[in-house]
Amino acid sequence: MEEIFAVKGNIIFTKEFGKYEIMEDGYIVVHGKSIKGVYKELTEEYRNIRVEDYGDSLIIPGFVDLHLHAPQFANLGLGLDKELMPWLEAYTFPEESKYSDVHYARKVYFSLIRELWRFGTTRSCVFATIHKNTTKLLMDLFADSGLGAYVGKVNMNRNSPDYLTETTEASLNDTEEILEEYCGKYELVKPIVTPRFVPSCSFELLKGLGELAEKYNVPVQSHLCENYGEISFVKSLHPEYKNYAEIYNGAGLFGDVPTIMAHCILVDEDEIELMVKKDLYVAHSPNSNFNLSSGIAPIRRLVSRGVSVGLASDISGGHSLSMMNVITSSAQAANIKWIESNRVDQPLSTADLFYLATKGGGKFFGKVGSFEEDYEFDALVIDDRNIPAFRTFTVEERLQKFIYTGDDRNIKERYVSGKKISEPKVY
Amino acid sequence: MEEIFAVKGNIIFTKEFGKYEIMEDGYIVVHGKSIKGVYKELTEEYRNIRVEDYGDSLIIPGFVDLHLHAPQFANLGLGLDKELMPWLEAYTFPEESKYSDVHYARKVYFSLIRELWRFGTTRSCVFATIHKNTTKLLMDLFADSGLGAYVGKVNMNRNSPDYLTETTEASLNDTEEILEEYCGKYELVKPIVTPRFVPSCSFELLKGLGELAEKYNVPVQSHLCENYGEISFVKSLHPEYKNYAEIYNGAGLFGDVPTIMAHCILVDEDEIELMVKKDLYVAHSPNSNFNLSSGIAPIRRLVSRGVSVGLASDISGGHSLSMMNVITSSAQAANIKWIESNRVDQPLSTADLFYLATKGGGKFFGKVGSFEEDYEFDALVIDDRNIPAFRTFTVEERLQKFIYTGDDRNIKERYVSGKKISEPKVY
Repeated sequence: MEEIFAVKGNIIFTKEFGKYEIMEDGYIVVHGKSIKGVYKELTEEYRNIRVEDYGDSLIIPGFVDLHLHAPQFANLGLGLDKELMPWLEAYTFPEESKYSDVHYARKVYFSLIRELWRFGTTRSCVFATIHKNTTKLLMDLFADSGLGAYVGKVNMNRNSPDYLTETTEASLNDTEEILEEYCGKYELVKPIVTPRFVPSCSFELLKGLGELAEKYNVPVQSHLCENYGEISFVKSLHPEYKNYAEIYNGAGLFGDVPTIMAHCILVDEDEIELMVKKDLYVAHSPNSNFNLSSGIAPIRRLVSRGVSVGLASDISGGHSLSMMNVITSSAQAANIKWIESNRVDQPLSTADLFYLATKGGGKFFGKVGSFEEDYEFDALVIDDRNIPAFRTFTVEERLQKFIYTGDDRNIKERYVSGKKISEPKVY
Repeated sequence: MEEIFAVKGNIIFTKEFGKYEIMEDGYIVVHGKSIKGVYKELTEEYRNIRVEDYGDSLIIPGFVDLHLHAPQFANLGLGLDKELMPWLEAYTFPEESKYSDVHYARKVYFSLIRELWRFGTTRSCVFATIHKNTTKLLMDLFADSGLGAYVGKVNMNRNSPDYLTETTEASLNDTEEILEEYCGKYELVKPIVTPRFVPSCSFELLKGLGELAEKYNVPVQSHLCENYGEISFVKSLHPEYKNYAEIYNGAGLFGDVPTIMAHCILVDEDEIELMVKKDLYVAHSPNSNFNLSSGIAPIRRLVSRGVSVGLASDISGGHSLSMMNVITSSAQAANIKWIESNRVDQPLSTADLFYLATKGGGKFFGKVGSFEEDYEFDALVIDDRNIPAFRTFTVEERLQKFIYTGDDRNIKERYVSGKKISEPKVY
């Protein structure tokens, strides 16, 4: 029988975009992996349950990182002076080629997972590399850690360096092998179909991947409309399609199963319409978009149109795994977008962005990212006593201070799906 | 007699914009407060001097923060969802009014200085408030800490809340009292004439401040062209001037003595010409400019024209005192400016920005911000062993990793003007 317990503290989360739910000195009652409710006082039925009392700490949902490249962790903070295409060739592809080596992959991937833990990222959607064995290893390491993740073997069969190019057949076979083996293997770690992007996947490969996604009913992740150079290259490859999104759509990779597209900076009106119609998720990675001079995604506009948006580190285009940092950059990006749009696309508030960093991306994982009833209990305990304070702050102000001026040192505990997660240890 | 000593480590600094000087496993020889030279091996004459061996650590110049508001430290991370003018009224002015209270000021100012220490900011140019006594206190606290600073009593005699408005006479008298008392009081902490900005200073006040700056030969700091609303307000106040800069210039506050203008986002061609002619310094505060939806300053253009630029946190418009964070945001801002300028204003490299964060702003303090001969020895010792590394990095790559992915935990020692500075202790 699963335990019922409660955590106690200053609870803050968002059910809806832009609207905090706050319960000071309240209780979250958890049964097994799921939340029973948030209470000011424990009712009779919970009188004797175990209570983890976190005193004056904040309790917030765990952060969700909707797009990151695991192998690029080794390059974090390097080479942030190039655009997308030269950056891929100078930094990214050579690094990714190393992941045929299980020994090397284990070191980097373990270290990455420990960093995700450190920054309170309880769920993430991850690109591995083309390499089957180390993609499996990454899933195993995530499962060991207790953190939740979708992990994709990357598919690439064209316009890539020889050392990082698969045959169509091998690409599909290796992908299917992973789906066979891992779809049911873990509860919190699942495979996801991951064509890198149109430039590096022939239509035949894309179509094969669409079929696999349908056959195994697994989600899809890829990149869309990040950069002018990329888009014109895609146009030259597929002049028969009216836009970039339609290519994925034609291959069954655009919302026939739950689908995340990273970036979407330069999507046109037709693409936005298709995104709405097919319930797409957008992974918004402002640090990466700034660092690679890609531009600023129209997040306010996408949210207003009803597109689901989550936030993402996109390492190592992004230089930080901290979702607090990503929230900050997202606010800054939205402010500049407001100017760019002649003050039409309104800025995003901290509450807007906190929603996107928790429930916004969490929805992709099911009932994740909120403290509503039946949601999986993913939470962080925030001890902000080291943040200078010269008056009493509200819970909302304390959350702002933590996000904009705090760091991993403020995160005292992490819970994923009802379980307290300790620091991953090398095994 | 002043001691001669050396520090040993992996030395990296910039003499020129964009160009690293690197000496692996080298020595910096310091005599008293000044650098004698950087050497691969110690020569005969230095054979017996004390050597602080920092092993494999990096040794870099201390960071210079060319613009920040000390009282706003209490608001750090709060209210980053407003534009300049409403933000001043809702958050900033009410907080600044508290600095008539010496007890309160001491708490906040001490805490600020400890944070500057923590983040390796060895020199800063600081706005206090209109209050004479607590401005003096701030200078005393800086002097106690060992960090270098220019500190200005802020002048405001119009368009400000009653509780934060001085008479012209009191504003000038209080300013002069501080100049009299503090110009020669400390070696590393000096007063600076600090009209808040044109909207809050009558021309009479500005002119009086210009005369004081000339009489006492002290530098000037203020704000210029941050925001559209501000600029049109200034135009309505002074239709007789062709632009914002000319108002300061007409009052003797634009380069007749060394002068820093913060922001300069929306400066026009005439203003840039005047800045070049009068050797102005620009304090570039990208976090503040993002957070307050002000826009992006044309830093590449200003640098190309020969304007001196330094980087600045501008707390609490900026949310972080970390100059590593400011470098990162400056790189991001420059990338977006590159797009905005139709790819004319080239992005800024890490070496460009590292120069601006050290020698670029350091020049305002004299021979500060570099490890060249006769420069004051301001330095940070960077221990980056906690930053995950899966291959051997060059010194330049290690600096990038520290700036983009490290934090204050990597700063092991701080030196200012030849002295090792320990953590400020409450007295």
